[in-house]
Amino acid sequence: MPEFLSLLPPSEALDRWLSYLPAAGPVRTEVLPAQAALGRILAAHATAPEPLPAFPRSTVDGYAVRAADTYGAGPSLPAYLTLAGEVPMGRAPEIRLGKAQAALVHTGGMLPEGADAVVMVEDTQAVRADEVEILRPMAVGQNVIPIGEDVQAGQIVLQAGQRVRPQEIGGMMALGIRQVTVAARPRVTILSTGDEVIPPDATPSPGQVRDVNSYTLAALVEASGGEPATQGILPDRYEALLAAAREAHADSDVVLITAGSSVSARDLTARVIGQLGPPGVVVHGVAIKPGKPTILAVCGNIPVVGLPGNPVSALVIARVFVVPLLRRLLGQTGTPAEPSVRARLTANLASEAGREDYQPVRLTGGPGRQAEPIYGRSNLIFTLSRADGLVRVPPEATGLPAGTEVDVLLF
Amino acid sequence: MPEFLSLLPPSEALDRWLSYLPAAGPVRTEVLPAQAALGRILAAHATAPEPLPAFPRSTVDGYAVRAADTYGAGPSLPAYLTLAGEVPMGRAPEIRLGKAQAALVHTGGMLPEGADAVVMVEDTQAVRADEVEILRPMAVGQNVIPIGEDVQAGQIVLQAGQRVRPQEIGGMMALGIRQVTVAARPRVTILSTGDEVIPPDATPSPGQVRDVNSYTLAALVEASGGEPATQGILPDRYEALLAAAREAHADSDVVLITAGSSVSARDLTARVIGQLGPPGVVVHGVAIKPGKPTILAVCGNIPVVGLPGNPVSALVIARVFVVPLLRRLLGQTGTPAEPSVRARLTANLASEAGREDYQPVRLTGGPGRQAEPIYGRSNLIFTLSRADGLVRVPPEATGLPAGTEVDVLLF
Repeated sequence: MPEFLSLLPPSEALDRWLSYLPAAGPVRTEVLPAQAALGRILAAHATAPEPLPAFPRSTVDGYAVRAADTYGAGPSLPAYLTLAGEVPMGRAPEIRLGKAQAALVHTGGMLPEGADAVVMVEDTQAVRADEVEILRPMAVGQNVIPIGEDVQAGQIVLQAGQRVRPQEIGGMMALGIRQVTVAARPRVTILSTGDEVIPPDATPSPGQVRDVNSYTLAALVEASGGEPATQGILPDRYEALLAAAREAHADSDVVLITAGSSVSARDLTARVIGQLGPPGVVVHGVAIKPGKPTILAVCGNIPVVGLPGNPVSALVIARVFVVPLLRRLLGQTGTPAEPSVRARLTANLASEAGREDYQPVRLTGGPGRQAEPIYGRSNLIFTLSRADGLVRVPPEATGLPAGTEVDVLLF
Repeated sequence: MPEFLSLLPPSEALDRWLSYLPAAGPVRTEVLPAQAALGRILAAHATAPEPLPAFPRSTVDGYAVRAADTYGAGPSLPAYLTLAGEVPMGRAPEIRLGKAQAALVHTGGMLPEGADAVVMVEDTQAVRADEVEILRPMAVGQNVIPIGEDVQAGQIVLQAGQRVRPQEIGGMMALGIRQVTVAARPRVTILSTGDEVIPPDATPSPGQVRDVNSYTLAALVEASGGEPATQGILPDRYEALLAAAREAHADSDVVLITAGSSVSARDLTARVIGQLGPPGVVVHGVAIKPGKPTILAVCGNIPVVGLPGNPVSALVIARVFVVPLLRRLLGQTGTPAEPSVRARLTANLASEAGREDYQPVRLTGGPGRQAEPIYGRSNLIFTLSRADGLVRVPPEATGLPAGTEVDVLLF
């Protein structure tokens, strides 16, 4: 228990690490067609070149009128208006509404000049071909979207740092914004180390295991907006690892090194990272389970992470530290709002005071969901495959009793 | 209010619609390299060709021992074991442990024959080069991952219908599974209709608006696992729309038609859909806001949706009906667990009994978040751009008071 009290809690470790980086913002930007920007982070504000809508539109099927001509109208005393014509969809009306006149208009159609409200067809009665009875009084602007109700010309409609969702693409299309400047995906190079690690397409001899971390980390980086590159498997030897780390450091925005899991292999990783440039290692060990031996470094403005070699630890640590790092390198702003679901624990979770635990859980049941802990050592990748998400046990808690309502952070 | 009581609530409308489709399952399958399958839905089970781990592994740095040799050991009465050598990482140990022998082993290393436990180095003391003192008794299996603890040979490790996350890719790599059969992305053709609608790269004349729905729907389809195709903008004329709809129907797995927003344009869509094959329209109108005039159809086994023309309605309806449809056409199983966050409403939400409302909200604050309703007519696409998610007001509620804790469905 006391060992964790000398280590930084994850949130402090993250803040400390990020404080050594240059100011938040995209590492590079690129210009994309607007409809290809789904999921990307905007690198510049966008302003509306024109108002939306650009003309007053009817929100109903009915008759465009001058509201004043309908004052006092009711079912027993209709207002009689002369029908001046029909507004065709997609064209400016040629009609100019005079006193006591009305024009047939469809939902989304443009109001003719002189009109300031639209009466729903249900509130009218057609009496003769050229006359319509209005059965209720209209207020100015009723059933009309005025020019600029959605956005005004010159208004900032998209913020730098915002993620592009389907509606942002729609908004850009509505305004004729065809190109957009987004943050380039940070290049993340992943080095896997370990004398026992072999490529997945090789057949392991006794004592050997296939590389898992290069692939899980690459997938998480990709899903989090980065551009992963793997650089093969390195032996637990100082010179070889240093050469590979220098190469990765020279042309990446982030370097991830999964250490071997023995103490000597972890020390080797820390020594290599220490050679990549100042300030070097800024956090060595975090009060977290799994993932205590995590190394957080900044080497010449490039963040470098030494991740634990166990697959479960590596993936949890990447989620806790690498995902927020990528947000920062993308210049992403706004509430992170990590996707989660509420569920009730089916069993007690034990934890040590001062340590933040991430417990894999499986969700069961429909609404009123339950979170069932999946136990398994952090060497066992299928522990995470059986789980739907993680429950965080905060450092100040010494566990959570069964029945506690928790947020399950979804994978 | 009574008008909604004659319409189906969204969940019943969805069930009814889906009941006309063939049994759930992927429309087609394809084979991908395992590491390219991130986010895809598995179309077949996968079994472990070998156990994981394939050899007994140490979970600590220490000494492999025969547990029986350590019984009764303690700090004041250590067990003295002869050092038989070191197990190199990545190779089968050549040592065979005899009685009262120990072998140096690293985390992740293979246990030598004869060993059945590992003593942590912290619980030992090196006395001479060829002897080690064991300071505590070991149980059989302690600090050892036995063969098959993660998965047994022949065990199903991945289920058909499961979404591939980073950990599934890692699991496949660990087992040497290099290829995987996944559901092909359903082809979703999107038709936008409306005499007033022009392509986004054109400059609108008065009365014209740029196409939004083709792009928002394409983006949502893409994000939900489908393969969107847009087929241009069609005029509100029966023959032209029918010809385009027949073409789309012939080579798509799903057809989405955004109707013009006037009553006559919506009737046109329904008439066209009615010509595409039996059973045709199975739901016309849903007790939902926005999106009441939704049309759900199945035409010769192909689902066809008539979506409202208003951009906000179209996107909400796509989320409520098209996303679950795609799950089914992908054969996706398991709890949907829609990403959401808990927040407290900052204002009362009004609703009508019998109608399910989807209210756009913006999230503010950190933990203990608040959900602030974003009001705007469903013609206004930037209403959704200002929002972080939707709050569902269930049909049985007549609104939700300010302060209610709600789940915000994230976009």
